[in-house]
Amino acid sequence: MKSKLIYTGIRVKDLGDSIKFYTNVLGMKELRRSKIAAAEGEVAILASEKGGYELELNYYPPGSKFYSSYNNGEELDHLAFQVDNLDAALEEARKAGYPLVLEMKGQTERWAYIQDPNGIYIELVV
Amino acid sequence: MKSKLIYTGIRVKDLGDSIKFYTNVLGMKELRRSKIAAAEGEVAILASEKGGYELELNYYPPGSKFYSSYNNGEELDHLAFQVDNLDAALEEARKAGYPLVLEMKGQTERWAYIQDPNGIYIELVV
Repeated sequence: MKSKLIYTGIRVKDLGDSIKFYTNVLGMKELRRSKIAAAEGEVAILASEKGGYELELNYYPPGSKFYSSYNNGEELDHLAFQVDNLDAALEEARKAGYPLVLEMKGQTERWAYIQDPNGIYIELVV
Repeated sequence: MKSKLIYTGIRVKDLGDSIKFYTNVLGMKELRRSKIAAAEGEVAILASEKGGYELELNYYPPGSKFYSSYNNGEELDHLAFQVDNLDAALEEARKAGYPLVLEMKGQTERWAYIQDPNGIYIELVV
């Protein structure tokens, strides 16, 4: 079929904590927030730039039919964010309470990971 | 920091099966495939359109330091794909072996989910 990947929806334990991380640490903008009656939950939509790809934060409170305890599985490997300066970005993240958890090197490239408030690996790469 | 969300990396049990699903069923294009020595794994990069947001399929074979058995957790809620005609898209997916697993209705909107070969919820929405 003809289709277009329009956003990635991650599940969060606390909407406020995750919004803070993605806006304060990674500089995303919160575009909108809304309650989804059909899902008995709430979502916040973020993007790095106007018209950019959207990250949807999905929160289901206890009692929602979609609520479940939060287990970190394998299906989401990581979300990748491009930064201007990797060392400066890592230092800024560290100061905000999100230290480096893994650094990787290729033949010429170098990239690194921090973890979001739910344990999701966030790749930082130039 | 200033950063830009550039791609979503999902983990897959079988690279070929997932490439087939995302290209044959959802119409994405495979842009490139490469072995990542540092991760002892292999990745395939897909996009819905040229210059579009990228989906990275990450495969770690048994023996890789990043290999682990595949558990479906909560961190990835879903990936959303926009389609022209929801019923036609669902019918096409069903014929390809990926039936509807959840249908949702808002006041005016309607959206539905199928599951990828690893159990990831794929939202189809007009």
